[in-house]
Amino acid sequence: MCRFLIFKASSVDKELILPGRDPILLAHLLTRPEHSIINQSYDSRLRIDNRRPINGDGFGVGYYTPEADPELGDGPCVFCATTPAWNNLNLARLAEKTKSSMVFAHVRASTAGVLSETNCHPFTFHSLMFMHNGQITNFQRMKRKFASHMKDEYFLYVQGGTDSEWAFALFLDTLDKLGVDPSGPAGVNGFGHEMIRNAMLLTIQFVKDWSKQCSEGDADNEEPSLLNFAVTDGHSVIVTRYITSQTEEAASLHFSTGSKFIEYEPGQYKMERRDRRQDVILVASEPLTFERSDWVTVPTNSILTINNQTVLLHPIMDEFYQTDPSVSRSSNFAASRGLVSPIVEPQASTNVNLPPLEREGRRRLSITV
Amino acid sequence: MCRFLIFKASSVDKELILPGRDPILLAHLLTRPEHSIINQSYDSRLRIDNRRPINGDGFGVGYYTPEADPELGDGPCVFCATTPAWNNLNLARLAEKTKSSMVFAHVRASTAGVLSETNCHPFTFHSLMFMHNGQITNFQRMKRKFASHMKDEYFLYVQGGTDSEWAFALFLDTLDKLGVDPSGPAGVNGFGHEMIRNAMLLTIQFVKDWSKQCSEGDADNEEPSLLNFAVTDGHSVIVTRYITSQTEEAASLHFSTGSKFIEYEPGQYKMERRDRRQDVILVASEPLTFERSDWVTVPTNSILTINNQTVLLHPIMDEFYQTDPSVSRSSNFAASRGLVSPIVEPQASTNVNLPPLEREGRRRLSITV
Amino acid sequence: MCRFLIFKASSVDKELILPGRDPILLAHLLTRPEHSIINQSYDSRLRIDNRRPINGDGFGVGYYTPEADPELGDGPCVFCATTPAWNNLNLARLAEKTKSSMVFAHVRASTAGVLSETNCHPFTFHSLMFMHNGQITNFQRMKRKFASHMKDEYFLYVQGGTDSEWAFALFLDTLDKLGVDPSGPAGVNGFGHEMIRNAMLLTIQFVKDWSKQCSEGDADNEEPSLLNFAVTDGHSVIVTRYITSQTEEAASLHFSTGSKFIEYEPGQYKMERRDRRQDVILVASEPLTFERSDWVTVPTNSILTINNQTVLLHPIMDEFYQTDPSVSRSSNFAASRGLVSPIVEPQASTNVNLPPLEREGRRRLSITV
Amino acid sequence: MCRFLIFKASSVDKELILPGRDPILLAHLLTRPEHSIINQSYDSRLRIDNRRPINGDGFGVGYYTPEADPELGDGPCVFCATTPAWNNLNLARLAEKTKSSMVFAHVRASTAGVLSETNCHPFTFHSLMFMHNGQITNFQRMKRKFASHMKDEYFLYVQGGTDSEWAFALFLDTLDKLGVDPSGPAGVNGFGHEMIRNAMLLTIQFVKDWSKQCSEGDADNEEPSLLNFAVTDGHSVIVTRYITSQTEEAASLHFSTGSKFIEYEPGQYKMERRDRRQDVILVASEPLTFERSDWVTVPTNSILTINNQTVLLHPIMDEFYQTDPSVSRSSNFAASRGLVSPIVEPQASTNVNLPPLEREGRRRLSITV
Repeated sequence: MCRFLIFKASSVDKELILPGRDPILLAHLLTRPEHSIINQSYDSRLRIDNRRPINGDGFGVGYYTPEADPELGDGPCVFCATTPAWNNLNLARLAEKTKSSMVFAHVRASTAGVLSETNCHPFTFHSLMFMHNGQITNFQRMKRKFASHMKDEYFLYVQGGTDSEWAFALFLDTLDKLGVDPSGPAGVNGFGHEMIRNAMLLTIQFVKDWSKQCSEGDADNEEPSLLNFAVTDGHSVIVTRYITSQTEEAASLHFSTGSKFIEYEPGQYKMERRDRRQDVILVASEPLTFERSDWVTVPTNSILTINNQTVLLHPIMDEFYQTDPSVSRSSNFAASRGLVSPIVEPQASTNVNLPPLEREGRRRLSITV
Repeated sequence: MCRFLIFKASSVDKELILPGRDPILLAHLLTRPEHSIINQSYDSRLRIDNRRPINGDGFGVGYYTPEADPELGDGPCVFCATTPAWNNLNLARLAEKTKSSMVFAHVRASTAGVLSETNCHPFTFHSLMFMHNGQITNFQRMKRKFASHMKDEYFLYVQGGTDSEWAFALFLDTLDKLGVDPSGPAGVNGFGHEMIRNAMLLTIQFVKDWSKQCSEGDADNEEPSLLNFAVTDGHSVIVTRYITSQTEEAASLHFSTGSKFIEYEPGQYKMERRDRRQDVILVASEPLTFERSDWVTVPTNSILTINNQTVLLHPIMDEFYQTDPSVSRSSNFAASRGLVSPIVEPQASTNVNLPPLEREGRRRLSITV
Repeated sequence: MCRFLIFKASSVDKELILPGRDPILLAHLLTRPEHSIINQSYDSRLRIDNRRPINGDGFGVGYYTPEADPELGDGPCVFCATTPAWNNLNLARLAEKTKSSMVFAHVRASTAGVLSETNCHPFTFHSLMFMHNGQITNFQRMKRKFASHMKDEYFLYVQGGTDSEWAFALFLDTLDKLGVDPSGPAGVNGFGHEMIRNAMLLTIQFVKDWSKQCSEGDADNEEPSLLNFAVTDGHSVIVTRYITSQTEEAASLHFSTGSKFIEYEPGQYKMERRDRRQDVILVASEPLTFERSDWVTVPTNSILTINNQTVLLHPIMDEFYQTDPSVSRSSNFAASRGLVSPIVEPQASTNVNLPPLEREGRRRLSITV
Repeated sequence: MCRFLIFKASSVDKELILPGRDPILLAHLLTRPEHSIINQSYDSRLRIDNRRPINGDGFGVGYYTPEADPELGDGPCVFCATTPAWNNLNLARLAEKTKSSMVFAHVRASTAGVLSETNCHPFTFHSLMFMHNGQITNFQRMKRKFASHMKDEYFLYVQGGTDSEWAFALFLDTLDKLGVDPSGPAGVNGFGHEMIRNAMLLTIQFVKDWSKQCSEGDADNEEPSLLNFAVTDGHSVIVTRYITSQTEEAASLHFSTGSKFIEYEPGQYKMERRDRRQDVILVASEPLTFERSDWVTVPTNSILTINNQTVLLHPIMDEFYQTDPSVSRSSNFAASRGLVSPIVEPQASTNVNLPPLEREGRRRLSITV
């Protein structure tokens, strides 16, 4: 059971920055919200499947610097940890001192790959950043297909042992074969959302095909793969909610748009919508606020695009697309993997005025720092 | 919410070792049991209070070597980790290759003191080993009392920032003032269980007194301190279940005795009792097996002694002792701290033949190692 | 043998920022210079005393954010590591994406205190930041003096086990007793350089007095203490070069001023001086460049002040001040502690076009990041 | 510049153990000798090439348990660390409490592969253990050859990113293709020294062949590969000293035999030879003692075998074997990689009665433990 979170503010287009307004303090996403993905990772009230291991197996956040400064380069900055995120002093301090308009964050419960910084999401390659929530079923059987399909550059890119890093390498290889150099300068508007979406859909196609070829016997009866992928070039964002099944739901995915993501009382956040602007867009495996109306659920087997602060949703029309509107997918499989997260109602809290750590009787790490 | 576990086999008296029989493989205590304190720490089915942070904040195990070998010395060996215990490769490997007849293990959720190896239990001093489950309320106010009361040797012993380490330093100082040199050779039978029990009771007395002196205003209305301490010199073991309250229950504490602690199916353990011998004694903050009949609950505000494989229970008769048998203590406070753990019934498990990690779809770290 | 480094650019006064000009990319101080304190820590050509342990015992960097943004607060951001700095992926990435006008950096070889993040310099308290290069001789004997002298607030501030952290707590206590609240807002110009210098001199006085009181027998024959302290409130910087001896040199200390700190070829830096402006000031335990003329040596037992981009040097006139100009101090003691670093000449380098890691045949960690 | 060390005592054949006599306390190999591979790693007096990074990039020790106990299994126990070995509290404590008759230890300066536990030597596979001192030149170009040559089982075995781990996987694959199941029970005498030596020689042959095939242009002018490999099944030990060059020396390798490895004064060790027995055999990249007569240098391009406490040396007779006795190899290349270590003379030491850490003015970590 992993979790991920994407934040994009309009000012990510660096020419348009209104200084001090749009980039968000990382603490507002990561450490302060009662329902942040870090607090989710230890607070079991917020957990759906309590039989699964807690997300204590690694954490990563990647962000693009808000300044238009050539010295800072195009690529994102990544901070990873293999100790639990909720107790990481460096993270707590950086989050209070760092702002960004484009943030990817990921909390990991290892299902494959040992605990190592090389296995932490998000993965980056020059200006690109990638993360995965889910699993490629029987990846071990397919690993050689991945290895032999790719150009050397991407084969050698892989440092760790996870299906997710290989999936990113495959995405890079696919982008390359579509005529784009993933290591090259992305241009003022990046690689373009159509190109990235196209490469993502092809990546899923490869995984799907190899999965069939490598199945032992009755492929239809094997566990489906859960392919919620997110990728960005610092401009557009592409996120999939996908499962290789016609009858099961994919891992949950939600988004929220508004004019500002605000803390209305300590630890409690909501999406403010003062007008119809979408200055702020959040995409998350689990809702970050308790406001049901803040969140829209992305349908299973569709692909979400953020382009110029507009959210687009396209269905992924393949053999796993469910055309019969009367059929509803089961959430059993995704739930068994701890990957279903409905939009929750606010819960009565006894210490509602305390931020989460203090409420637990814990000392906040960064108080005097 | 911390957890601790104590294991003692009869062969701890090294002259009497029947090789290969009595010392237990650490894996049988730590990594293999479905209900080990490590698996408890991520498996929320086994958690009582899901609102509390998970025990991912540090782990320690201390054990005495089973061989009577002067080169190995009197003291225990301690392995600590600040990464989650369930994903620690070194621990997984050591547990499969190390045996001992006297083991202390501790899983920590930090309530005070940053995540650091210096804050990991058990703490050791020459042949002595100590751990704590609970908290000294308002310890910050009392810290100077601790510091000024002790001899330099024990004042300077403290390396970290936890109430627990200071409590151990106080215990050492108390032992010293009773005429025993804690750094000296403990003798064939150690310091003697009476001496250790006496020092432990005095230690609790000091904490209690200073707590009153340092309370601001109405001491009776302050939160009580939870003082479940465990100490051993490698021979006797003393464990307290104690709370500075007449009406609340202390953090839970149980023990189990038998002829052998055995794995009857993968991940499932029980205490075997073939005769009336107590070759094996377990003391734990939470039961390690699902057999209700395996476990005896230690009453609140009493002190448990293991001497020569005999378990003794004495009440701690002070102002917090409840003499009225019709009064039953409330478990509310300890529960609010995540420190109440009743004896649980076995639960139907769907994958009962799989060991815990595999059941979760995780790869066991040490398979090929 | 520790090392430290201080960088201050004129734009630290946030009202005056000329965006993109003055704050320096941390990589230019920490990871890219061949002679950075990180590269010094593994490259023994740059080491004076090769018998000393390498500085692999911890690293810390603290920096103030360059933006005038109330959300970011007054205090510095600190990143610490207990793994060797030259191989820390998070540090390598942050250094390439972070700029600041006021930076403290510290590499540690532990002489006391276990390896722990709580023992890493710089230490911070609200807007203040502190580090130490050297050692307080016989600190263990003096620890109770420290503890009993201070107000609770500063006594309880100490989390770790080092003489340096206690020295900072003493500095805070001294500042407090001079009428300044170290936790309060520092004002537009901070606490003022006179106030900070005064508190620093008193701190040294206390250490000196207690050292004498706690000496066993012949104080004059004991090893001197090495007290190179650095402190800042984000505005002024105070650094001492001090030893409790009339005949020995203190640990080395140098500074350099100029209009810009520039990389003239890969890994090779120099201080540019286009006019008489001191836009950039560096203070370091060892020179960062091979240009002898870039560096001025701070005399033993003096105190350096940076105020408004002006460097002031004052002698510390006490019993250890050497008034006789014909007497020259010996560098034996400081050298025996690995704390003497002369200004070095450039050395012929065979691979001068390669940055340092590549020259060593090592892959740069952040190549694709 | 890595270093490795092998220790084998006669009692490794478990039936023959004379309890308490032959297995060595790990501290005598790792932490106590002034010239242990750990102390070598920070004490630059013992370093040959001071321009190379210090060996602070990871440490691993693997040992077989001395008891003949089926519960402990056939395989070794491995303890790895990514923090510097000289400051690792767990290692310091384990070394004082663990004995073994067969030990592999490795200190790593990363030349490839990020700092991660998955990249630490020794690598293990069931009863086998492997380590490497050196580098496969241009391994990136050959990686696909490795991947496509191997059976799935060994291809999937690789978890990290080092040439060394791939070399071990290739060795396992080669053993398998020779008709031995590396995961199977090794039998009372292991797989047999001839079989292991044969597989090792074939492994080197593959590396050599692929290296030629993957060279770009003039293979003869490329840097040679340094292939000092060590492998054991818990019974026999095979170690190579090999370089793919006819004119350069391989990384240094020495061995020492005797009746006991003893500490004659604190921190000073020597090999005792009371009779002609070889109860103790040490093989090391650098001598562990200052006695020139203790050590025999293994010739370049030869393979060393330990079988039943007998040391055999065979030349590796291939195109890189130097048949002309009048030609002497140059040590320039290996020296440039920091891999040449001559047998050194004892040096005058000023504090000869102090163990190494105390001599440096450092507090020993485990003093009270």
